[in-house]
Amino acid sequence: MTGTAAPAPFTADDYRARLARAARAAADAGLAGLLVAPGPDLVWLTGYTPTAATERLTLLVLAPGRDPVLVVPTLEAADAEKAPGAPALTLRDWTDGKDPYALTAALLDGSGRFGVSDNAWALHLLALQRTLPGTSYAALTEALPMLRAVKDAAELDRLAAAGAAADATFEEIRNVRFGGRREAEVAADLDRLLREHGHTVVDFTIVAAGPNGADPHHEAGDRVIADGDMVVLDFGGLLGGYGSDTSRTVHVGTPTDEERRVHDLVREAQEAGFRAVRPGVACQEVDRAARAVIERAGYGPYFIHRTGHGIGVTTHEPPYMIEGERQPLVPGMCFSVEPGIYLPGRFGVRVEDIVTVTEEGGRRLNDTERELVVVD
Amino acid sequence: MTGTAAPAPFTADDYRARLARAARAAADAGLAGLLVAPGPDLVWLTGYTPTAATERLTLLVLAPGRDPVLVVPTLEAADAEKAPGAPALTLRDWTDGKDPYALTAALLDGSGRFGVSDNAWALHLLALQRTLPGTSYAALTEALPMLRAVKDAAELDRLAAAGAAADATFEEIRNVRFGGRREAEVAADLDRLLREHGHTVVDFTIVAAGPNGADPHHEAGDRVIADGDMVVLDFGGLLGGYGSDTSRTVHVGTPTDEERRVHDLVREAQEAGFRAVRPGVACQEVDRAARAVIERAGYGPYFIHRTGHGIGVTTHEPPYMIEGERQPLVPGMCFSVEPGIYLPGRFGVRVEDIVTVTEEGGRRLNDTERELVVVD
Repeated sequence: MTGTAAPAPFTADDYRARLARAARAAADAGLAGLLVAPGPDLVWLTGYTPTAATERLTLLVLAPGRDPVLVVPTLEAADAEKAPGAPALTLRDWTDGKDPYALTAALLDGSGRFGVSDNAWALHLLALQRTLPGTSYAALTEALPMLRAVKDAAELDRLAAAGAAADATFEEIRNVRFGGRREAEVAADLDRLLREHGHTVVDFTIVAAGPNGADPHHEAGDRVIADGDMVVLDFGGLLGGYGSDTSRTVHVGTPTDEERRVHDLVREAQEAGFRAVRPGVACQEVDRAARAVIERAGYGPYFIHRTGHGIGVTTHEPPYMIEGERQPLVPGMCFSVEPGIYLPGRFGVRVEDIVTVTEEGGRRLNDTERELVVVD
Repeated sequence: MTGTAAPAPFTADDYRARLARAARAAADAGLAGLLVAPGPDLVWLTGYTPTAATERLTLLVLAPGRDPVLVVPTLEAADAEKAPGAPALTLRDWTDGKDPYALTAALLDGSGRFGVSDNAWALHLLALQRTLPGTSYAALTEALPMLRAVKDAAELDRLAAAGAAADATFEEIRNVRFGGRREAEVAADLDRLLREHGHTVVDFTIVAAGPNGADPHHEAGDRVIADGDMVVLDFGGLLGGYGSDTSRTVHVGTPTDEERRVHDLVREAQEAGFRAVRPGVACQEVDRAARAVIERAGYGPYFIHRTGHGIGVTTHEPPYMIEGERQPLVPGMCFSVEPGIYLPGRFGVRVEDIVTVTEEGGRRLNDTERELVVVD
């Protein structure tokens, strides 16, 4: 790993503070509690990740005014006890053949509305609905969309470290050969570079050359990159448990005037989105600012996704920069600003940085060249 | 890859047949349809796996008497069209900012009971419940637990190939050095060997030495394996899209009489479970047969998990060999038989094979030495 040393691990006190903050947020929202499934919510609240999310119920039960309880299969109790947040929790284990939903129900009042992790399994939610007919449920991102959205200083340090590693990756990848190599080979370079710069997880390494760039979620395939190709690069993963996500579009050899013009437009849209960022502004204003640049130039129908998504212990979480999202920006929020133009059968362009909200406006956590970079 | 060539890929007709079979099973169970989320159900029915399961709805809507429709985000439509089962489906895509639940609701009658994939996100289920207040839902493993349980000949070929690769892996790992190496090093050997023998996914490589073996889900850590250690090995993954999962317990140097006795007991329990397998017998009888051997010897409290789980496009699925499961065995079902004894602070033993049900009884898809193997 290059750059500064990895930040110190979170402590049980860090998790205790997050658990208390989540319980308060639940109470403020009129919820009887939160039911937290394995995944990013559980990682954020306890540092615990079971080996796999399975049909065996693992669930954090967090009710205001009560001690947080982690329900775990007996088989996994020893692992759960080792989680960094375990000292802040009571563990209740259940053995194959017993009813974990009855165990969970006994921890609750049997009435009220609960927030449940978005990614909790339908299997488990349906069993809870059946066991506790007096309760109702809301998805956590709907009930408390901003629970994990405002990052504290320790989290910002981690996101900045992940962003710096992504920047270092781009500085190296722009110097590798593109022409004559398959997309998948350049994607393998990206994977290797992200890991060399400290990532422990690589979530995506999109290399989309020529017409493949017109599919925003094309990953990387067998296409041999040719002279004259625009190439969309979009890569990220986790470093120290926090995410990176950046996109740059490069060109092999000299771009045409149209390619330059479309790239300039996306870069200007990205800049407009970035400049819209300040406390109190609704998320949708970031989307509108970026989109307006592209629409004014007549490319509106070719910008086919929202402008951005939050990032933290995942590379995809609230807040979303999308029409209709009226949530005001708050200092400490971190999200992508990533407009794009996709011309079917021809090429695509996307430019993306992670931006954090400060009192003074946006601050980029990625910050490499945004002009069209020409590669070999 | 060693052994026979990989089986031919499934065709659109294979998926068409599965879709028809699932629709019939739904109708027979009185369901108005199936709502299938990304994951093993969707892989089995369509061959399609989105890049990631996310807050963006991807859902197969399968209603008896109607054409199957796959609802996908526009961003991912190009990928979905490339799925091997896509020719058997109608794709309906939706763009960021539109309501995918309204789109889904328009494909349904608005009443009736639907089976929904166990691992569908709570976010999506809650939105469907809200959009379609006249509907009710059951988890697929509860509504149609045996939907994927009975494997056809092509699936059995794949499971047998995965089992043969796991056997070949064990034959090599028993000859590597254990003593003086860390568990994680032996686990890395297992990972490498499974891949060398054709696995494309490795799901778990448990190496649990000495007291670590008493935790059935211990993975592999920094413990240096010592002379005199019992070592539980439990490894598996996917080959040709189908699973392997086998466990053997080996001993470094000469075992004590007690270690031999406990291992013999687990081996006998495994044999008893295996011998209980025949068409028409309830799953719980396999569990009872294995458990009785261990209970009679006084080790009942140390056998702390069910006896087995199904395997197919996942390494963990119905049918479960567990007390209370009255489902009769049917030829073509495939599952693990894996009793164990776990002596806290001391050692553990587990012996596991994948078994398929034939008209004549059980047939092992793993079949290496089950006596206690002594390693260096």
